[in-house]
Amino acid sequence: MTSELIGPVEVVGTGLLGTSIALACRRAGLEVLLTDVAPEHVRTATGLGAGRVRRPDDRPQLVVVAVPPDHLADAITAALVAGDAVVTDVGSVKAAPLADVAGRVDPATLTRYVGSHPMAGSERSGPLAASAALFDGRPWAVTPHQGADPAAVDLVAALVRLCGGVEARLAPEEHDRAVARTSHLPHLAAVLVAGRLQGAPPEHLALSGQGVRDVTRVAASDPALWQQILGANAGAVTDLLGEVREQLDVLIAAVRDSDRAALETILGAGVAGTLAIPGKHGGPVRPMRSVFVSVPDHPGELARLFGDAGEIGVNIEDVHIDHDPGRPVGLTELLVLEDEAEHLLGALESRGWTTHR
Amino acid sequence: MTSELIGPVEVVGTGLLGTSIALACRRAGLEVLLTDVAPEHVRTATGLGAGRVRRPDDRPQLVVVAVPPDHLADAITAALVAGDAVVTDVGSVKAAPLADVAGRVDPATLTRYVGSHPMAGSERSGPLAASAALFDGRPWAVTPHQGADPAAVDLVAALVRLCGGVEARLAPEEHDRAVARTSHLPHLAAVLVAGRLQGAPPEHLALSGQGVRDVTRVAASDPALWQQILGANAGAVTDLLGEVREQLDVLIAAVRDSDRAALETILGAGVAGTLAIPGKHGGPVRPMRSVFVSVPDHPGELARLFGDAGEIGVNIEDVHIDHDPGRPVGLTELLVLEDEAEHLLGALESRGWTTHR
Repeated sequence: MTSELIGPVEVVGTGLLGTSIALACRRAGLEVLLTDVAPEHVRTATGLGAGRVRRPDDRPQLVVVAVPPDHLADAITAALVAGDAVVTDVGSVKAAPLADVAGRVDPATLTRYVGSHPMAGSERSGPLAASAALFDGRPWAVTPHQGADPAAVDLVAALVRLCGGVEARLAPEEHDRAVARTSHLPHLAAVLVAGRLQGAPPEHLALSGQGVRDVTRVAASDPALWQQILGANAGAVTDLLGEVREQLDVLIAAVRDSDRAALETILGAGVAGTLAIPGKHGGPVRPMRSVFVSVPDHPGELARLFGDAGEIGVNIEDVHIDHDPGRPVGLTELLVLEDEAEHLLGALESRGWTTHR
Repeated sequence: MTSELIGPVEVVGTGLLGTSIALACRRAGLEVLLTDVAPEHVRTATGLGAGRVRRPDDRPQLVVVAVPPDHLADAITAALVAGDAVVTDVGSVKAAPLADVAGRVDPATLTRYVGSHPMAGSERSGPLAASAALFDGRPWAVTPHQGADPAAVDLVAALVRLCGGVEARLAPEEHDRAVARTSHLPHLAAVLVAGRLQGAPPEHLALSGQGVRDVTRVAASDPALWQQILGANAGAVTDLLGEVREQLDVLIAAVRDSDRAALETILGAGVAGTLAIPGKHGGPVRPMRSVFVSVPDHPGELARLFGDAGEIGVNIEDVHIDHDPGRPVGLTELLVLEDEAEHLLGALESRGWTTHR
């Protein structure tokens, strides 16, 4: 078995993740074979240039299973027994499907299975939301079981690199505890907060700011998918929800009694938690500052602003545009390193831009 | 009393909100007088062009109290008895400070007080983070008590308009119940989730994706400020936390028992809640799609991309730039109306841009 990824790569399940992986493989020049229980999804994915329909005599080097959690074990088992390809999957939970597959194939066959999980997604789903760039710079867990063939592990790691992901290697059970904390718990907290908004008076909801939008955004995701994820990781999620329940009781008592010391402890732990999250690309978090610029609502003006910022020589780390269809001038927020903000503000003003301090 | 805002406007407390209001008033040509217990904050604010230091013989038309919640009642009372100005404040909680002030001034004086609360802020604080554009298009609650002088209410509404805010008029108690739901509860949920990250193994935290970053972002805010906010709105917040505790118990049982029907109900309520939040500028939420474009990491390239997008004639609703210092090419995400995405993709490709589907 070679660990060089030469294809063909078969993608089983042409939803958001499967089609995005297929597009990334096509971008690298690999042959991609597509399978889905829904023929219209395969048609859409082939139409996007993600590959061709798989034929019975195809012999893939690597099979990527990208189906909903409930169907993972069936699809992984089918791929393992259908030929001699290495098989991976991109499911959100690793230990339960592995145990299921291990009970259905012999140990020699199981050596060809290596689970994985890219930390990328969207509230949107389906092949039309797919992008070859979806995984760029994102963490991607590779979770080999103890009997996995090292060459099979290397092949899956090669797929991660090809897709632009950043590999994180973890045991399956370890992975499941990690995502319970970094993904499943945040999701459920967002769901509980969003659930309290339903049915609230519109004049109350009119006071919604950016905070509640950010906290609840992920709660818009597909409930059918999340039922399956939670079902497959019930143990780790239940443990963490129990911890949150204890903390919630402490919090309720602290708010009710206006216990400043207890509130300080809880709020301080929250601040420490936000600082524990690594920077976007694994690097340290650098202090940023927002610079606001008024931009007339003509198409060419934004280009002129970026042209000027480029000439000034300050790197724009991120941009937000606040369009209001009713106004002739939009507000553009440029995120730059804190110690470059004053230079950018002064230089933009001297070029005639209206900035806001 | 005239309800035309002609100034001078006195701002008491030159932190993020106070200095931002001062800058917006200066932008409109009004005279602004600044006061703060910390002289270095006033110096910074005057240095930013937010106004001048208040002198004893100044006679402001409107006083804006922008001090921490614990000091609101003292500062509002002091401003009311110091002269005949209309007095407002920008505190996050309205009923408790009003009751406190009402117990300390006579009813005739109280007619000149009208509370308010702009729904704008930042994890950052202090005058250096201020911007005249902070309130642009944001909701801003105006919360007159029953005895408030209608002309005073009109004057505060004029300040909201001058700052670019969108007025929402609510009774003080109503306001406090609304922000408990749309601001205080989301904040506390973010704090509880972030608190579970503290001390987690780095290899677990390496799997952090955009979801947990969004859910926990607001938990980075100043604990000292939030202790005061929660202390002043303890009743409404405790009620809502009690509701969440009940829902959490239902959720824990549903996850533990893998009760799909119960999970469906809870997750579905979350989806409905996200849809209940009004659009960014109060309008309907329009379906958007992300278009990904590779942009070489030279300053002029971003300008060329926006120039081309402008010529293609597609309105860019928002932009995200995913810089990775280690790569020569950055990834730019353009958010556009869903039905314009294909046109933009094709037109950019024909101009030689590398897009990602």
